[in-house]
Amino acid sequence: MYRIGIDLGGTNIAVGLVNDETFEIVKKKSTPTLADREGEEIVEDMARLCHEICDELGININDLAGIGVASPGIVNPNTGIVKRASNLKFFYFPLAEMLADKLGVKHVPIYTENDANAAAWGEACAGACRGSSTSAMITLGTGVGSGIIINDRILSGSNYAEGELGHMVIEFGGIPCSCGRRGCWESYSSATALIRMTKEKIEECKAAGRYTSMMKAEKINGRTACDNMRAGDEAATEVYNKYINYLACGINNIINIFQPEVIAIGGGISGEGQSLIDALTPIVDANMYCGDKARTRLKIATLGNDAGIIGAAMLRTGLRS
Amino acid sequence: MYRIGIDLGGTNIAVGLVNDETFEIVKKKSTPTLADREGEEIVEDMARLCHEICDELGININDLAGIGVASPGIVNPNTGIVKRASNLKFFYFPLAEMLADKLGVKHVPIYTENDANAAAWGEACAGACRGSSTSAMITLGTGVGSGIIINDRILSGSNYAEGELGHMVIEFGGIPCSCGRRGCWESYSSATALIRMTKEKIEECKAAGRYTSMMKAEKINGRTACDNMRAGDEAATEVYNKYINYLACGINNIINIFQPEVIAIGGGISGEGQSLIDALTPIVDANMYCGDKARTRLKIATLGNDAGIIGAAMLRTGLRS
Repeated sequence: MYRIGIDLGGTNIAVGLVNDETFEIVKKKSTPTLADREGEEIVEDMARLCHEICDELGININDLAGIGVASPGIVNPNTGIVKRASNLKFFYFPLAEMLADKLGVKHVPIYTENDANAAAWGEACAGACRGSSTSAMITLGTGVGSGIIINDRILSGSNYAEGELGHMVIEFGGIPCSCGRRGCWESYSSATALIRMTKEKIEECKAAGRYTSMMKAEKINGRTACDNMRAGDEAATEVYNKYINYLACGINNIINIFQPEVIAIGGGISGEGQSLIDALTPIVDANMYCGDKARTRLKIATLGNDAGIIGAAMLRTGLRS
Repeated sequence: MYRIGIDLGGTNIAVGLVNDETFEIVKKKSTPTLADREGEEIVEDMARLCHEICDELGININDLAGIGVASPGIVNPNTGIVKRASNLKFFYFPLAEMLADKLGVKHVPIYTENDANAAAWGEACAGACRGSSTSAMITLGTGVGSGIIINDRILSGSNYAEGELGHMVIEFGGIPCSCGRRGCWESYSSATALIRMTKEKIEECKAAGRYTSMMKAEKINGRTACDNMRAGDEAATEVYNKYINYLACGINNIINIFQPEVIAIGGGISGEGQSLIDALTPIVDANMYCGDKARTRLKIATLGNDAGIIGAAMLRTGLRS
């Protein structure tokens, strides 16, 4: 059967037709979100892309097994309402109901989910966490996103704002976070945090008259410390180790709280691949509760930017626990 | 219907016959655990107390709807095996199967659960969290115990060692914990931690030639700072505020991760009652994700030492998620 997954991002609306046996994206289209627009225009674009894809493939849209939308913000999957999404004009926005009307579909269920949860669901169905029933996905990008799957269900809370692992404080009284707290994991483990640590180290070296090859970087980004560390630079190694220790700290917290079978790591930093896992594993093992070795496997997420589309496409009722 | 709950502690084995409609403990008996004994002797005592209670009440043990055991340690409720419990000689100990044999019951299901989870289940069925489907219970005693209920099920992990909220790091690189990590919440929010903070403050005052009424305490315990704070002592107020801020930090983490409807607080520190809730609430509200007021209600646990018995008695299959 075919399903459609829609990944609504701050920059692009990406729509993909997914084969729900092979999890392959058969066809994908996207259009700019233009986030300042009214929600209705965004939904009209979603509906248009859905119809275009089906028309081009000769598929009757009413034959789809489901259409799912991954949206930023606080999403109630029971009502299809997005309570709010910080980078969109959504405020108690009836996404699912409006999309159903704009699509004009009959009997095709429309599902909605928070984007981080949908990506975690995608990795659980078809990616790094496939075959496990309890998993977590963390996305190390501008912030730290997360989704948690427990017993083949997406972890929900009493108000659908659950699973904000990035806003778990790991450094009491630490760096102020946009969420209003201090010392959130996000402030130590996002790509943004790694860039901050890199800049701080360069300044520290400058002040101390110490050379680091990171000084030669034209623009500091999430790879600067990693690349220079691999080239043997000592200061870069210090930055990388500091970052890895904070990242491992949050991962150990997740393990102690949930004991997932797999934690998948996505987002920009996950581009480091297996070397990231290899750096994390000994620290995570050394910090296991009661000295146990971690049963939780750390993996690099495999679906990349398609996780949202595939996860959204694979949404179904009863997903939440 | 009647059920039996057994709370296996490091000091006492407490057995109670529970009315599963009123959640009342009809009769309770206990005997010292003598934790150094072989597991079989402990189970024999459990079975004996079960029979004594039923005999004295004229109840046929085979008419019970269930018998549940709350055990310390890592408990697999599917097999009834306690993998290990730090203060008992249990190592892959077949608790449920041996108890069934020692009891000689037919068709009465035997359930097992970790003690902190059972207490959380008790509060969810019959105590502070009654009527909510998603809740957490934290126990502030020697350590910080915790149990999490999601959608009327006890949160499980892939290896039944989940829900160790006390071993979530909130102070990166902080105080060493018995679990091997540094900066665990338990090291800042247990009664033990409050006592440590109290002693540190007294020493600090002595060194600075500053008077605090806490110096007059014969023995420092978890109430010393609270009592002296209420009597207007400034140094005691500083200790109490520091403790409350750490406690609130972990509570905000729990809210951001799970968004439970209720968090129940039990253990020695919960003896402070509503004043503890009143002290925590403004800090928890001020630190909510994206500035939301906490929807999560903080409550003092209501079942006290009976939570384990009642929770164990109310165990049933399919409890775990």
